[in-house]
Amino acid sequence: MKKDFLITKSPQELFKLYSSFPQMEKETVFLEEALGRVLAEDISASEDLPGFKRATMDGYAVKAKDTFGASESAPIWLKVIGEVKMGEIPEYKLNRGEAVKIYTGGMLPEGADAVLMLEYTQIIDEETIEVLKPVAPLENIILADEDFKKGELILKKGHRLRPQDIGVFAAFGLNYVPVYKKPTVAIISTGDEVVPITKKPKLGEVRDVNTYTLSALVKESGGIPLPMGLVKDDLNLLKKICKKAIESADMVLLSGGSSIGIRDFTLEVISSFPDSEILCHGVAISPGKPTIFARVKQKAIWGLPGQITSAIIVFMVLVKKFLQWISGETEIILKEFKTIKAKMEVNIASAQGREDYIRVRVFKKNGIYFAKPILGKSGLINTLIKADGLIKIDLNAEGLDKGEEVEVILF
Amino acid sequence: MKKDFLITKSPQELFKLYSSFPQMEKETVFLEEALGRVLAEDISASEDLPGFKRATMDGYAVKAKDTFGASESAPIWLKVIGEVKMGEIPEYKLNRGEAVKIYTGGMLPEGADAVLMLEYTQIIDEETIEVLKPVAPLENIILADEDFKKGELILKKGHRLRPQDIGVFAAFGLNYVPVYKKPTVAIISTGDEVVPITKKPKLGEVRDVNTYTLSALVKESGGIPLPMGLVKDDLNLLKKICKKAIESADMVLLSGGSSIGIRDFTLEVISSFPDSEILCHGVAISPGKPTIFARVKQKAIWGLPGQITSAIIVFMVLVKKFLQWISGETEIILKEFKTIKAKMEVNIASAQGREDYIRVRVFKKNGIYFAKPILGKSGLINTLIKADGLIKIDLNAEGLDKGEEVEVILF
Repeated sequence: MKKDFLITKSPQELFKLYSSFPQMEKETVFLEEALGRVLAEDISASEDLPGFKRATMDGYAVKAKDTFGASESAPIWLKVIGEVKMGEIPEYKLNRGEAVKIYTGGMLPEGADAVLMLEYTQIIDEETIEVLKPVAPLENIILADEDFKKGELILKKGHRLRPQDIGVFAAFGLNYVPVYKKPTVAIISTGDEVVPITKKPKLGEVRDVNTYTLSALVKESGGIPLPMGLVKDDLNLLKKICKKAIESADMVLLSGGSSIGIRDFTLEVISSFPDSEILCHGVAISPGKPTIFARVKQKAIWGLPGQITSAIIVFMVLVKKFLQWISGETEIILKEFKTIKAKMEVNIASAQGREDYIRVRVFKKNGIYFAKPILGKSGLINTLIKADGLIKIDLNAEGLDKGEEVEVILF
Repeated sequence: MKKDFLITKSPQELFKLYSSFPQMEKETVFLEEALGRVLAEDISASEDLPGFKRATMDGYAVKAKDTFGASESAPIWLKVIGEVKMGEIPEYKLNRGEAVKIYTGGMLPEGADAVLMLEYTQIIDEETIEVLKPVAPLENIILADEDFKKGELILKKGHRLRPQDIGVFAAFGLNYVPVYKKPTVAIISTGDEVVPITKKPKLGEVRDVNTYTLSALVKESGGIPLPMGLVKDDLNLLKKICKKAIESADMVLLSGGSSIGIRDFTLEVISSFPDSEILCHGVAISPGKPTIFARVKQKAIWGLPGQITSAIIVFMVLVKKFLQWISGETEIILKEFKTIKAKMEVNIASAQGREDYIRVRVFKKNGIYFAKPILGKSGLINTLIKADGLIKIDLNAEGLDKGEEVEVILF
């Protein structure tokens, strides 16, 4: 009935709207809790790192020029005047012809400019070594500001923190880290036929798959799921729960509204809020066309297809990217999807004018990965259990040929 | 001195030893906590799913044969005898020439074998519709056992649970899930020069980067880090802490022993346990050669290189896979690494007989990804901050050519 009224957008048109939504506020977390969080400020080096001239090998701290010309047939003798203790300032000052024993990470004594590896020396007596190979100035050492110079930018805001980033912050003693708050996502599952998972459904009823699946997807994307419970198909009840969701969460996911009747219902609920804006109710992807994207009080409300298989694909392709945006993440190009290259095992057709997402199983034959489409009606969740990922057929492609190389977006 | 005594193994030889270690015990977790955990038992369908014949479209439940021959120019009339309420058993039994209004997810009435989409009908009056297109038997419906048949295997043990797996368990009302316990990993950081991160290091001292970095890596791999604190280079103290670590954790990571002296020290500590076995002290990878892998009381002890950059690479390439094994994971082929294909921006040389791991930055030019090696001494942690991932040069390769396609293992 309201078919002409449908605003259909391509995924790319949708993505352009994301930046009109505000990003999360900042908070401070302990360094040990910062892994996977998104940095909310640029971080610069508060001091030089490592802060002193360090050995990167076990051996002898020397003046490099004292070793020039040394070889196995014409070794050079050096006088060992002592040993650098780990963690201590060397009490020695090196003069010509002298060497000090040193270990990886030890501080070079004044006057030394290189570390001679143990392997290229021969012990003559307690005070003397033979040098069998020359060492160049600065070899096997790190200068005081060689890792980071004071004031140098370490990491930019918008970066999702990896283990090595945590390590560098530890090196600078940064034990509190400014990050964006994790977005809270309200999940509303509707439908008169849906019962809690602990209940045995009567004939005609089904358990609440959507709340659990969407919560897991939110968690996987770095958000905090806020399940709002099951809501019967009652306009006033749904309005009430939606209002509560908008007030308590940073984003709202409504699911269960796949049918035209229910979609109008969802649209009516969203439109009932004074400052609401329907941004689209139809996305050119398959499955997932009947997706609603709206704004209420600067917050996004998504109306997802009721069939969970479609809802999962819409989440992976559209919602996840939105969550990354409001989470403050700016470097999502490389890490967006985990993909693998595979060859199509069969031909596959596709309609033009929409992005088709095909579920595939990936298997290896003679060292090559193949992608095999999973057959079965799109509403069957078993298709997503048997699949390892999705392949995307572009808006203007007519399909894929057997043997063609495709990129599989892994689950 | 003990150079002849070195047992060097290739990564592949090391991997073969992993299965000689026991896997974790089982535990039961709530379904909402099961995402990312490894299933510890095969799970089969406890009932048919969806359990009743369901509509997958909005429209009319019909006998398909009543629609055969219908077209826009020769529509067929059907009598609408009512509407199926969501979640209820339909009170109607369909006779020839009859239709019942139904919504997506609704239960088909007895006698109906297909759903006619709303789009292919025309309402004549409250009790009559025109069929404009025929529907085939079983079209737009899911049979009672079409998603899963009672007794059918859903997921095998050893599978790491994804959002859709959580959804399927919800569908079956499985609100407790049998999973493998997460391995606890003791982290021991040694070195007289290392101070806690909250302390301002004196000249010659450095902050404890290793505990924080290794804890983050363990967390990212699904383990629970158990930091044992900083240990001075004291044989008896290290033995004591190691004993405690072996008793309280499922695996031990020792770091700080990069130098030959300290490596012997670590070996001495491990050998001091009555039932210890040194499996290798040298792996044919670069960086990361001086890696120790040992067994004490059926538990793995790793002696990682002291330089954190090498330790990170050893963790990614060797330790992570071990953690996956003891965590019970069996399907690690596809999901092992997140990779991206790129072209080498320059030539790069490599020594044969070892796997070389080169840090690279990935950038996009004219739609193509390029991998650019990060220069700088391998001990500099800034090289890992600037890098997006690693490329591997195989044991027997001599290097890579400019323009050659490589797979970048993303951090």
